Amino acid sequence: MRYAVILAGGWGERLWPMSTRERPKQLLKLIGRSSLVSETLTRIAPLVSVDDTLVLTGASLREKILEELEPVPTERIIGEPVGKSTAPAIALAASVLLAADPDAAMVVLPADHVILDADAFRRAISLAFEEAESEGALVTLGIRPTRPETEYGYIKAGGPAGVDGVRQVDRFVEKPDRETAARYVLDGGYYWNSGIFIWRADRFLEEIGRHLAPVAEALAGVTEVPGTVGFEAEIEEYYETVPDISVDYAVMEKADHVTVVPCEIGWDDVGAWPALARIWEEDGDGNVAEGRSVIVDSEGCVVYSEEGVVAVIGMRDVVVARTDGVTLVCPKDRARDVRTVVAELRKKGLIGGG
Amino acid sequence: MRYAVILAGGWGERLWPMSTRERPKQLLKLIGRSSLVSETLTRIAPLVSVDDTLVLTGASLREKILEELEPVPTERIIGEPVGKSTAPAIALAASVLLAADPDAAMVVLPADHVILDADAFRRAISLAFEEAESEGALVTLGIRPTRPETEYGYIKAGGPAGVDGVRQVDRFVEKPDRETAARYVLDGGYYWNSGIFIWRADRFLEEIGRHLAPVAEALAGVTEVPGTVGFEAEIEEYYETVPDISVDYAVMEKADHVTVVPCEIGWDDVGAWPALARIWEEDGDGNVAEGRSVIVDSEGCVVYSEEGVVAVIGMRDVVVARTDGVTLVCPKDRARDVRTVVAELRKKGLIGGG
Repeated sequence: MRYAVILAGGWGERLWPMSTRERPKQLLKLIGRSSLVSETLTRIAPLVSVDDTLVLTGASLREKILEELEPVPTERIIGEPVGKSTAPAIALAASVLLAADPDAAMVVLPADHVILDADAFRRAISLAFEEAESEGALVTLGIRPTRPETEYGYIKAGGPAGVDGVRQVDRFVEKPDRETAARYVLDGGYYWNSGIFIWRADRFLEEIGRHLAPVAEALAGVTEVPGTVGFEAEIEEYYETVPDISVDYAVMEKADHVTVVPCEIGWDDVGAWPALARIWEEDGDGNVAEGRSVIVDSEGCVVYSEEGVVAVIGMRDVVVARTDGVTLVCPKDRARDVRTVVAELRKKGLIGGG
Repeated sequence: MRYAVILAGGWGERLWPMSTRERPKQLLKLIGRSSLVSETLTRIAPLVSVDDTLVLTGASLREKILEELEPVPTERIIGEPVGKSTAPAIALAASVLLAADPDAAMVVLPADHVILDADAFRRAISLAFEEAESEGALVTLGIRPTRPETEYGYIKAGGPAGVDGVRQVDRFVEKPDRETAARYVLDGGYYWNSGIFIWRADRFLEEIGRHLAPVAEALAGVTEVPGTVGFEAEIEEYYETVPDISVDYAVMEKADHVTVVPCEIGWDDVGAWPALARIWEEDGDGNVAEGRSVIVDSEGCVVYSEEGVVAVIGMRDVVVARTDGVTLVCPKDRARDVRTVVAELRKKGLIGGG
């Protein structure tokens, strides 16, 4: 049977102060009226029942995620005691699903991405499930690149794979420099690594066993089912033991039989402030704004005001974000340095956990 | 006898959103623990008793000014029903003082300037009173320029005047361009027009009669003394009638026998945001900040946070100001355009009166 695994951990610190630890990115309503995590659930629901959906999130966020994903059975929302990148979370999910269903196939969905074309998304996922189930492949969704993005990893596609429309993966490429990224876009054979994966649970765990032994060993200690006190105690130990490592690095780059479904689904990971210039509507001078603001003689700015009014005069390519407690001002191309400031503010005690 | 006239109208809109109509610049504590208007009173008090001080402010601000200038007798704080630049206000004050004291000499003090050297200020004022009383001159305080400022008017000084240390005024010069301003600084004979004036009340009203007949005529209708209902009714009519014109333009540029006391008193009119870079302490990278902030990889910024935290990354020569309801971001050299934004925000209903 088919299952969905929603990864709803982390908090999206490069979107601070819009996102904070208490109000992480996946709970924000970046487009429309629903939070990103809620949209993630709604988007996959026509293909996978909410009863067959598993959600992993930080233990401290679990209550908020429960509220937000009300249709999902409570015991299927797992609170991770420690955040440990994607590999341990996905392996745990695969193990839980496999224990109940030896034929389990799963789609792994990050909870904090924007996908504008839900129909195209579901067509791609259906194709990927077919490929995963019939061929035993580890399948990724590869997004046709529309700009020389240097903040994404790329997938180099090879020849046709088992199911029509799917291609072999030649290799995974780390974030390239601008020139290389431009070459990838022109080449036509490179795709953005979306972080959306589809595979049979047993096949994935086979690769975990091969390439990530510490996780495989730790998984042996998880024997209870989610929703029990035993399970909670077991995953406490599990998360303490496992390495902090991403599934791309730990598994995808090394695994056998990895394929890709190339697609155009209006995907954006909204990783940092400049991404909002792509998904919010611009005003004719290349500015985007959410909330109350006045923008005069300015170009290419991203302006966000959740509280009060923001006035911007004569600025170019800057981010101005005002939240209840914080105002951030930085050039768009310094937006990745927001992490540094968050760390400094926390050190100075000027902001709390977030 | 000697009197002080404090001009506490207006609200300093180029310092918005720090200043607003409800919380005008003269009520701000820009340096130290007292408001600018309160410091103005304290600074002159050793020379002129608070009982001999007259204050003019907007009618809507009168209550707040009363509180702030508690030592000044209530009836000596006049609420102007309409704001009409400096000439009508100063003429009214001169008339009120002259009615009670035919020998009245007065110093006119804007309530929203910073003066760092109070002793030097009082020495200059004493000299000016001497000149005004013994020579009948209209005396101005001329500030020795320390930079090629294009936002101030200049006074070209001539030969020595009656009292030692005082000079004739050759002419008043409107705000110059940068090149001209630089020439003035090098020349040595030019001074900033501080807007601080000293004269006998009768001499000033003589010049008003000569150069500003509509004001002289309107003054004839004011016969009651401040603090009476009659006076309030009379000035209601007075302010309706008089033209909206500055004392510099209406009188000083045309009057006979105008002299200047050149001085160095740490004066700044704090006209707009960049001025704060001069009066607040800088951090070593040329940034100044008031309130809670973190400034990273930035130079020459003016950062103000009265509420919440302001984080600035990788910016140069910008103003970032966060108040309870507003965040302003603009380059320092666009700070004068703040007026435009205030007007636009008010039109859009995004801010109230201020």
